[in-house]
Amino acid sequence: MTAERPPFAPGPGARGLLPEGFRDLMPPWAEHEARLTDRLTATFAAHGYERVSPPLVEFEDSLAGAGFAGAPAGRLSAGAAPMFRLLDPASNRMMAVRSDMTLQIARLAATRLADRPRPLRLSYAGHVMRVRGSQLRPQRQFRQAGVELIGAEGREAELEVIALAVEAAETAGLDGLSLDLTMVGFVPALARGLGLDAAAAETLTAALDTKDVGALDGLDETARGLGRGVLEAAGLAEPALARLLALDLPDEAARLARDLADLAGRIAADVPGVALTVDPGETRGFHYKRGAAFSLFAHGVRGALCRGGRYRTGGADAAGTDRGPGGEPAVGFSLYLDTMLQGLAPPAPAETVYVPAGTPRAEAAALRGAGWRTVNGLAKPGDPVEEARRLQCSHVLTDRGPVPVSTAG
Amino acid sequence: MTAERPPFAPGPGARGLLPEGFRDLMPPWAEHEARLTDRLTATFAAHGYERVSPPLVEFEDSLAGAGFAGAPAGRLSAGAAPMFRLLDPASNRMMAVRSDMTLQIARLAATRLADRPRPLRLSYAGHVMRVRGSQLRPQRQFRQAGVELIGAEGREAELEVIALAVEAAETAGLDGLSLDLTMVGFVPALARGLGLDAAAAETLTAALDTKDVGALDGLDETARGLGRGVLEAAGLAEPALARLLALDLPDEAARLARDLADLAGRIAADVPGVALTVDPGETRGFHYKRGAAFSLFAHGVRGALCRGGRYRTGGADAAGTDRGPGGEPAVGFSLYLDTMLQGLAPPAPAETVYVPAGTPRAEAAALRGAGWRTVNGLAKPGDPVEEARRLQCSHVLTDRGPVPVSTAG
Repeated sequence: MTAERPPFAPGPGARGLLPEGFRDLMPPWAEHEARLTDRLTATFAAHGYERVSPPLVEFEDSLAGAGFAGAPAGRLSAGAAPMFRLLDPASNRMMAVRSDMTLQIARLAATRLADRPRPLRLSYAGHVMRVRGSQLRPQRQFRQAGVELIGAEGREAELEVIALAVEAAETAGLDGLSLDLTMVGFVPALARGLGLDAAAAETLTAALDTKDVGALDGLDETARGLGRGVLEAAGLAEPALARLLALDLPDEAARLARDLADLAGRIAADVPGVALTVDPGETRGFHYKRGAAFSLFAHGVRGALCRGGRYRTGGADAAGTDRGPGGEPAVGFSLYLDTMLQGLAPPAPAETVYVPAGTPRAEAAALRGAGWRTVNGLAKPGDPVEEARRLQCSHVLTDRGPVPVSTAG
Repeated sequence: MTAERPPFAPGPGARGLLPEGFRDLMPPWAEHEARLTDRLTATFAAHGYERVSPPLVEFEDSLAGAGFAGAPAGRLSAGAAPMFRLLDPASNRMMAVRSDMTLQIARLAATRLADRPRPLRLSYAGHVMRVRGSQLRPQRQFRQAGVELIGAEGREAELEVIALAVEAAETAGLDGLSLDLTMVGFVPALARGLGLDAAAAETLTAALDTKDVGALDGLDETARGLGRGVLEAAGLAEPALARLLALDLPDEAARLARDLADLAGRIAADVPGVALTVDPGETRGFHYKRGAAFSLFAHGVRGALCRGGRYRTGGADAAGTDRGPGGEPAVGFSLYLDTMLQGLAPPAPAETVYVPAGTPRAEAAALRGAGWRTVNGLAKPGDPVEEARRLQCSHVLTDRGPVPVSTAG
């Protein structure tokens, strides 16, 4: 097994066998991913987050995100991450395979866990599936792990979650971490404050999303100027925020800009060891978020390891803070395990000792008890050392105990 | 959270929210299941089984089991465990959600791992989905974990795998284990040896499967007598096998009966601590198996924890032993984690310490380093002890360190 092969590249003979975007995880990567999951969920548990495990499929309407604040009905299924649909012969209703787990956690918070004290701290790890891969993530099935802190407003809740995302990535062994912050709602507030009509607001949003200064040309002078200013206020947090706060922003946008600066200041003080950038014009990829949102990157790894932020667990229109249709304030994140694996060193091959046939079972058991992985000989080989080598074991059991095959025989 | 609630019973407010047979696994059971998975896969790894992780969906024809020895094309999908089907918009081909992982492991052995030395030892853990639940297992999604030993014939391979299944269940904490053995092919061999036509063979098979002596009445006297004899040869291994070997069986059936007795004798000698039963008339539930097959039960747990046995990884018709369409001899098992959880004591609630807001971050980190789970206060509470109690923490952090909330304040 070549540990050096990138874990998601198709191997010899694999081409055409699996649908596009689906992968076999091979040795030693499959074990590596399982251990990574364990390490992440152990970190979440140490911070008081309790694990839940919702099913892979639900009725389509519970997964469609219709109930999500800021997510127009069907937006998640139609726009953000289209879901595979299945007809359930038992109920004759459509089910969908989850494309995200946050919606399921919100459902649990609103139903089975409605009576638990707030804030509620929940964690999860599991596979999600998407009908279409993206250029950045061609995988159509991948593993997510994350937390949701539900029923908590305010900066402290955001800081707890952001610090936990960074700690989880560090504990997993990733380095060169950088955190990119934005404030979802800033761009719409800017468009509203400038009195832009729907078409002009769309032009502004698209130009800021694609970082395309030229696309601002259709706007009036004030909007063009502020659009340019916002584009220039992306990058390393300190100078970018200074530029952002110096802009003559409309009231609501100015308030959100100050909020972003406050959050960045708190992170700089409380979460050491992570580079901090801001991108106030960013709106893509934060589908049902509103308010503070973040992405975590690691040096040399393509794409975000983690995305998260603030949202509401409930209905799109209600403004209440109860656990009913209006939902609750929440903040959380999802780590993408496929992306994380790309940033980790290949695991060291496990040491295994070949145990020739006829060795008493207790002897092999004692080796395992001492931490060895044993490979049981099924028939007496001519030469145990040769057989151990053929089976790619690192050691062979001899009268003197396990001996490296490189020095044995 | 009531740890006492059976993990798969619907909780308050859950009724009607999820499709039948799909479940939320709640705290503390979700973490418990994850730990159980870890313990099982660690046991497999200690015996040299390398983990692989195939995707949840594949093209329907790779999962349909058409290539399996003993499994007529489509039998697995049509009869044993019907699979959910999905249209893949990328290829316009039908995909299916796996109802079993053994077929995927066989595919890996024949393709990406064709060049690895034999025997090949692979392990897996993952979810499977079925269109219909059964009376014994209403769940339509559950987790499996297991191993496949591929490219190995003979008794030693069977013993290694059976001993590993028992060790895995013991390590998981299950007790009162019993192992039920059968020899797939015995009933067809009996029918052939007796010269029964298709209808009579079906009558015999159904009568033996349902343990219905009366259903044998339509058969001739010899068949009726032997059918009765086989039904009486089920139960505790030693007396049942004595009865079976005393029957005047046709040659091939007699050979398989001796083979079953040999296997039982070896298990009795080599795998201590498990009660041994045989059921030579059993054919249900071993869909693509042929030869030795087994089920593992635990005292007080409804249904088998584990099923396994011998099969071939390749085509239904070819008789070769290569890795091509003829396939390779293999033996393996699947443990059913939902059933295993039913036999385990509820996990002890984790001890958590409430850390009042304003506590230096390093102090909470030190507690976690010492094994505590911390729950971070987000705002200064009036009374930290009262707040810890409200949040259902077992301890509260005071000047004297963590103090149980029961004795604090």
